[in-house]
Amino acid sequence: MADPASPVKNGVNVEALLGAREALTKAPEAAQFKWRAACEWKDGTYSHSTVEGFFGLGAEQHRKTTFMFDADHPEVFASEDRGATPVEYVLVGLASCLTAGIAAVAQHRNIQLRSVTATIEGNMDIQGILGIDSDVRNGFGGIKVSYKIDADAKKEDIEALVAQSQKRSAVYDIVTNPTNVTVEVR
Amino acid sequence: MADPASPVKNGVNVEALLGAREALTKAPEAAQFKWRAACEWKDGTYSHSTVEGFFGLGAEQHRKTTFMFDADHPEVFASEDRGATPVEYVLVGLASCLTAGIAAVAQHRNIQLRSVTATIEGNMDIQGILGIDSDVRNGFGGIKVSYKIDADAKKEDIEALVAQSQKRSAVYDIVTNPTNVTVEVR
Repeated sequence: MADPASPVKNGVNVEALLGAREALTKAPEAAQFKWRAACEWKDGTYSHSTVEGFFGLGAEQHRKTTFMFDADHPEVFASEDRGATPVEYVLVGLASCLTAGIAAVAQHRNIQLRSVTATIEGNMDIQGILGIDSDVRNGFGGIKVSYKIDADAKKEDIEALVAQSQKRSAVYDIVTNPTNVTVEVR
Repeated sequence: MADPASPVKNGVNVEALLGAREALTKAPEAAQFKWRAACEWKDGTYSHSTVEGFFGLGAEQHRKTTFMFDADHPEVFASEDRGATPVEYVLVGLASCLTAGIAAVAQHRNIQLRSVTATIEGNMDIQGILGIDSDVRNGFGGIKVSYKIDADAKKEDIEALVAQSQKRSAVYDIVTNPTNVTVEVR
């Protein structure tokens, strides 16, 4: 448990999260969330997506900001590189999810973080998406995340932080385990 | 095969992609790509990520633009909502990947698109990430994508476009099938 008198300040409100855990244990229907995005095709492989409201705690939740994202393919694919590629969005999602988890777990364990940076790399044999070899998958062959962490803690405690962040990461779960996707045309 | 004299203009250079397919069939080592992102922790669950170079066609590929992304958690999680959540980045990646695929397949099949919009929703029982119930997964229980497409084609041809885009989508593969992720601390 986090010590309320702890001088550790990673910017995560652990008490609020523990309170939410207790409240949602008694009201599991409030734990049912729906996350959303909308995507509009622009031209070629270029699209524009928005992220705004979501559903959770039994109600529609509105945000002050609409987050906007351009996606495209790079020039080596005869596209115009007007945004990151879709697979790079997945890498951003995975790295940011693990990083938020490291901060939350560090706060809970009274470890002061000074800096956390990650590089993430996914290798892909594009013979898959180009349809050259049906034995090659379309997605990543594998992903490697490398953390550099400066914190008031021993190396093994830092490694334990990173391991725990994987255990609680939504995107790590999505990438490492199968998720059912239904696609319909209205 | 696309007809070079086709009046269909979806903005996808199908001839270049078919040329790439032929070239990479003869040089499979050039098809080995590495996609990357870098993530820097800012405060709490807030991080800043950048997407810049990648490796492909046997060389480091540089871009004119560095794409930048803020990720955070919303206020209902006692965070400050300074960016989309990591799981919303995954939804943006999936929707934009399928949408780019629809445009490419439509061009290849001589179908003129007028508009393509998608809404995407992932449901999540946050009892997983909060550690309330270990039988609940951390990620999405499931994802639903709903397309609205205006195109010069019959409904069954539009449905076939969408189905083919799933077959060739990198992010659809990443989400629906397991990918190995290695996380190290340097």
